[in-house]
Amino acid sequence: MTMHDLMKQLREANSSKIVLLVADGLGGLPIEPGGKTELETAKTPNLDAFATEGTVGLSIPVARGIAPGSGPGHLGLFGYDPLEHQIGRGVLEALGVGVEVGPRDVAIRGNFCTIDAEGKVTDRRAGRIATEVCEKLVAKLRSKVKIEGVETLIEPVREYRLVVRFRGDGLGDCVCDTDPLSTGLHTLEPKAGDEASAKTARIAAEFLRQAKEILKDEHPANYLMMRGFAKFPKIETMEEVYGLRACAIAVYPMYRGLAKLVGMTVIEPGKTIADQMEVLKANWNLYDFFFIHYKYTDSTGEDGNFSKKVEVIEALDAEVPKIRALNPDVLIVTGDHSTPSRLKAHSFHPVPLLFWAPKTTLADEATKFGERPCGRGGLGQIFAKEIMPLAMAHAGRLQKFGA
Amino acid sequence: MTMHDLMKQLREANSSKIVLLVADGLGGLPIEPGGKTELETAKTPNLDAFATEGTVGLSIPVARGIAPGSGPGHLGLFGYDPLEHQIGRGVLEALGVGVEVGPRDVAIRGNFCTIDAEGKVTDRRAGRIATEVCEKLVAKLRSKVKIEGVETLIEPVREYRLVVRFRGDGLGDCVCDTDPLSTGLHTLEPKAGDEASAKTARIAAEFLRQAKEILKDEHPANYLMMRGFAKFPKIETMEEVYGLRACAIAVYPMYRGLAKLVGMTVIEPGKTIADQMEVLKANWNLYDFFFIHYKYTDSTGEDGNFSKKVEVIEALDAEVPKIRALNPDVLIVTGDHSTPSRLKAHSFHPVPLLFWAPKTTLADEATKFGERPCGRGGLGQIFAKEIMPLAMAHAGRLQKFGA
Repeated sequence: MTMHDLMKQLREANSSKIVLLVADGLGGLPIEPGGKTELETAKTPNLDAFATEGTVGLSIPVARGIAPGSGPGHLGLFGYDPLEHQIGRGVLEALGVGVEVGPRDVAIRGNFCTIDAEGKVTDRRAGRIATEVCEKLVAKLRSKVKIEGVETLIEPVREYRLVVRFRGDGLGDCVCDTDPLSTGLHTLEPKAGDEASAKTARIAAEFLRQAKEILKDEHPANYLMMRGFAKFPKIETMEEVYGLRACAIAVYPMYRGLAKLVGMTVIEPGKTIADQMEVLKANWNLYDFFFIHYKYTDSTGEDGNFSKKVEVIEALDAEVPKIRALNPDVLIVTGDHSTPSRLKAHSFHPVPLLFWAPKTTLADEATKFGERPCGRGGLGQIFAKEIMPLAMAHAGRLQKFGA
Repeated sequence: MTMHDLMKQLREANSSKIVLLVADGLGGLPIEPGGKTELETAKTPNLDAFATEGTVGLSIPVARGIAPGSGPGHLGLFGYDPLEHQIGRGVLEALGVGVEVGPRDVAIRGNFCTIDAEGKVTDRRAGRIATEVCEKLVAKLRSKVKIEGVETLIEPVREYRLVVRFRGDGLGDCVCDTDPLSTGLHTLEPKAGDEASAKTARIAAEFLRQAKEILKDEHPANYLMMRGFAKFPKIETMEEVYGLRACAIAVYPMYRGLAKLVGMTVIEPGKTIADQMEVLKANWNLYDFFFIHYKYTDSTGEDGNFSKKVEVIEALDAEVPKIRALNPDVLIVTGDHSTPSRLKAHSFHPVPLLFWAPKTTLADEATKFGERPCGRGGLGQIFAKEIMPLAMAHAGRLQKFGA
């Protein structure tokens, strides 16, 4: 019996409210040996108060040693095994620019590239054209590409990157990349790997034929390649698994898209964490579960900016009392992965995790929210996918298993 | 390779003795924020001495967030995955009143109910008749029901509840409940869900036909419904898995029944924990593994009686030196789940776990047996089903794995 089966069997509705506050890339490392991490350095009186009253621990996003991307990082937090439910590259790229991906869609990453007179690739990234050029070329493609039998959507991403989405019936996603992976070679045909993807391959070939014609006088981006053909993964919604009316309050499209994948309602959040808190308050009575996404702990980490990461943690802390004021039954604060500013990248380190549920948590000795106190915390080290069953339990939403 | 396969491959016999002392529902919560739990409040010098010399940790009965019933709670402690080996409701109800369930049996929960002249249910619990009335009605049924081809056993449980057991060949347990789940409806026919259960369904229908006739002049309990048809689960015995001659010293029938399910010998224990200790001593040379069940930590928790739960923990502690006097090789003290008196119910919280094996445990820093010291203990947080392999190891009963 899987944990999802168990959730479906044991869950029961009540009026409890669960808040999952995800500070993206929260976990960090000291700059100097013997020093403090970003979270340990930050003055976080409000998070510390929750840590004092609640229980802390560490969340392992996927498995020990694995640094996840945003997709698996968030799926874990939503209670889905990230190794079991994988999201294709094309879908993630589409979600990142706000392109919806539904069950009839195949999403594909595109690269503008440069080909010579013989059709051989001379630059796989078309000289890294500016984003504005990309936007102009996408507009040109949009106005001219016409393929029967599918709806085609094209969206710029950044520099030489774009997204193509085909919507129609009978579109499989087992289609090989057309990128030859080195210059001096012809691009590859979009070849179907199974029967169900033959139509997608034909449509992609027609799309590429038209694009070559439309772009032929452009320079340096006179063609494009397609990679990461992917369909919307078949995944049960959070309502199906947990019986929760779930909503997402996320500023960035990627996280809204990931939330939609698991069936959350996405609410337009404004631009700042203060706006997000307003939205939380305004929607408090309409949902059971609230996913709030805070991006800046990750982006400052990626930038390698330790002191800025400390600042944005403190800015988040200042907003946390607004959650307490709503009297949630369960508040969880964690990250989808660590992004130590020292490493300027997502890392595999387990992520600080705070669990606050005044009726049911057994307070441990932690009085500060930070990597080291969490490492000694009462929750121990748990897998991210175990957080949702615990949240359901603390919310009183699970019946006893067996007699 | 499953852990059971591994046990069978690696196990070797010796003269070691393992004692598993289960304080049912042991784990608790403070009444007030910042306070102590029941176990932390109790004066337990003897358990504390074991904790000081041994290692402590927390046991997760089934999975994080899952509050188990007694069945899955104990199966985990006996080393069986409770999600893999599920015990049907009928079997548990039968075990709870001391009705044996063997491989040829189907056990069924019964409810006396009230039906009107048309046969429609007017009260699904027959006005919650007194247990004495239930006993009288069961006696009447016993004396009159006659069904060919099976042996029928009927046993009162409490108030309107009873147990029916059919013993015979070819009895499947895939039979639907006859409870229509709301009043104003006819009871349902016992419908077989597979070929192997057709005979059971026919017998149950005949049983109900006779019962309706026998009870027709009774009031308010003039009929009954059947639910939770269940067979004895196919499960390897502890002797088959671990090579242990195992015995159970449990006062309450449910726990004797669970012990029998995994092949333990059940010894008549007297009525008190002091009696149980006498039985332990008297049988010390006859078995390798001793399961001692102590009920009152759970029942006081269920009653919401914090101070009484503290008292019964202290009463248990006072008996523990009798175990030490026997020089066991391994002593494990834990619960099958937590029952915080604040919640008056089984909970999902991990359970304090004490492991004492003078030859092999690495003492941690714990000097008190309690939830918080256990949360920092040397064993960490482990799943209940991992306790038996650890016990086997500490008892020197497992060979090296691989060369």
